[in-house]
Amino acid sequence: MSVYTSVSEAQLGDWLKNYSVGRLLECEPIKAGIENTNYFVTTTQGRFVLTLFERLPAEELPFYLDLMAHLARHGIPCPAPIANLANQFLGHLNGKPAALVTRLAGTSIEKPTRAHCEELGALLARMHLAARSFSAYLENPRGPKWWRFAAKEVAPFLDAPRRALLEKELAFQAEHRFPDLPRGPVHADLFRDNALFHEERISGVIDFYFAGVDTFLYDIAVCVNDWCLDSPANAKALLAAYHAVRPLNDLERDAWSATLRAAALRFWLSRLYDFHLPRPGMLVHAHDPEHFRKLLEARIAKPAPWSA
Amino acid sequence: MSVYTSVSEAQLGDWLKNYSVGRLLECEPIKAGIENTNYFVTTTQGRFVLTLFERLPAEELPFYLDLMAHLARHGIPCPAPIANLANQFLGHLNGKPAALVTRLAGTSIEKPTRAHCEELGALLARMHLAARSFSAYLENPRGPKWWRFAAKEVAPFLDAPRRALLEKELAFQAEHRFPDLPRGPVHADLFRDNALFHEERISGVIDFYFAGVDTFLYDIAVCVNDWCLDSPANAKALLAAYHAVRPLNDLERDAWSATLRAAALRFWLSRLYDFHLPRPGMLVHAHDPEHFRKLLEARIAKPAPWSA
Repeated sequence: MSVYTSVSEAQLGDWLKNYSVGRLLECEPIKAGIENTNYFVTTTQGRFVLTLFERLPAEELPFYLDLMAHLARHGIPCPAPIANLANQFLGHLNGKPAALVTRLAGTSIEKPTRAHCEELGALLARMHLAARSFSAYLENPRGPKWWRFAAKEVAPFLDAPRRALLEKELAFQAEHRFPDLPRGPVHADLFRDNALFHEERISGVIDFYFAGVDTFLYDIAVCVNDWCLDSPANAKALLAAYHAVRPLNDLERDAWSATLRAAALRFWLSRLYDFHLPRPGMLVHAHDPEHFRKLLEARIAKPAPWSA
Repeated sequence: MSVYTSVSEAQLGDWLKNYSVGRLLECEPIKAGIENTNYFVTTTQGRFVLTLFERLPAEELPFYLDLMAHLARHGIPCPAPIANLANQFLGHLNGKPAALVTRLAGTSIEKPTRAHCEELGALLARMHLAARSFSAYLENPRGPKWWRFAAKEVAPFLDAPRRALLEKELAFQAEHRFPDLPRGPVHADLFRDNALFHEERISGVIDFYFAGVDTFLYDIAVCVNDWCLDSPANAKALLAAYHAVRPLNDLERDAWSATLRAAALRFWLSRLYDFHLPRPGMLVHAHDPEHFRKLLEARIAKPAPWSA
């Protein structure tokens, strides 16, 4: 589980007096997630999620919270941060930076259908359009700079073929940067477990704590690599639904297969990192890095052409 | 009904392309309300209310919309304005300023119980605390200046006793201003039909288009004059619930009965005005002004002492 910092009902009840959300009724730790401590919080006024930030750099937190607030005010179903009586999204609780956000209804889908993928594609495009007017800047914290850092750290744990694959892909990506693609703040981690569905519609996109500025295409690639893995038809449906809302240009189409590889590389690296260099207190089982190594090799062996 | 400006599905569908709220599914005129044209709007992404502003001064609209956005970001269940792709709350549709806001669940209560009045009192106090950090300023547009204007307009339609009552009360109020009471942006029109309840909790406070800066006590008085008319016990419960969240000071207690009279006067005047000077195209039946005349006389004859 991922409750690094525990919060008692008395502490929380007291802390909530800084907010206009009513009286605490219930508070329940959330076991999923590995980066932060999270609680479901129910008050007389509504349902919220409390997050205590355990390791994100304090200076990056306003970017994430303000981005969520920006998207929520555009009607995107994402957690809306709640401001306290000092009109701040960020507070402190038990020595940690802490924020309260709205809790969204719905459940994540393990086996998305074509219709789910269409929903996601359309929502992703709307999210990208809405994000364009967000003015704060944070470079994607898991972008190319981080890849090179992480590659150095995990290299000693890899056998020769994996090390060769990693080096070759880093070299390929270095030669395939796309500075002219449309970009903006992207979620960058929109796996199936970060989308909630209710009555076949997306009712929530959650967990923006890997967000940053990158190409919109990269955000799509992260989704396709997770949502449509075994179904080219679903991938096509996702892309078509996206394209109908924000048409992709020729540069984006040309960059598609290299970007799918970049998205596979990023998650192979982070899983290698978490697997070989687990953080103290990290009790969640690390995901198997091999999944994304295999995906990367498949994306290299058989480039997915643009198709929507 | 109050649809002054009609909007076709085709027009609305087109206009919604300026927003990140998905595709239009349904659009239905709202018959209640007399100030604006309103539609329920359902898209693939959610439920909204579209408002076309028919007569509010354009320069006041940002105050109302920004106040709602401010309260919503503090967790107050009020309509949250949706920003368009230019990041603006205010757009234009069919020649009118127009805004899209979230649609809240719940229904209004005609005969509130003591529990409803307690809910309202607590929420009102939380709303006032949250509103204190809102920095824009708009004087209550139905405050003392407007009373004097409206009194002049309606006087010719009144018989001698009513004219005398009006003059006497205006004089009394002029001698009983309370510049030192806590003040801030207040709803100023929180009648029963402007609060929605769901499962015995307030799920929405709506219609902020009479909001302005005034004393918090005035906002409470407007509520008590409508919600607790026949029940001193309910009034006491509302005040006690409010006081538990934002304790009222001695000045406020002393000003209570004069403020109840001010709130009665304001609505007597506006109902007289709408009754005798109806606006062209206003097809809603004007409320009977006599209700608030009687209430004002009752408040004069038997001042309600502070009690919570």
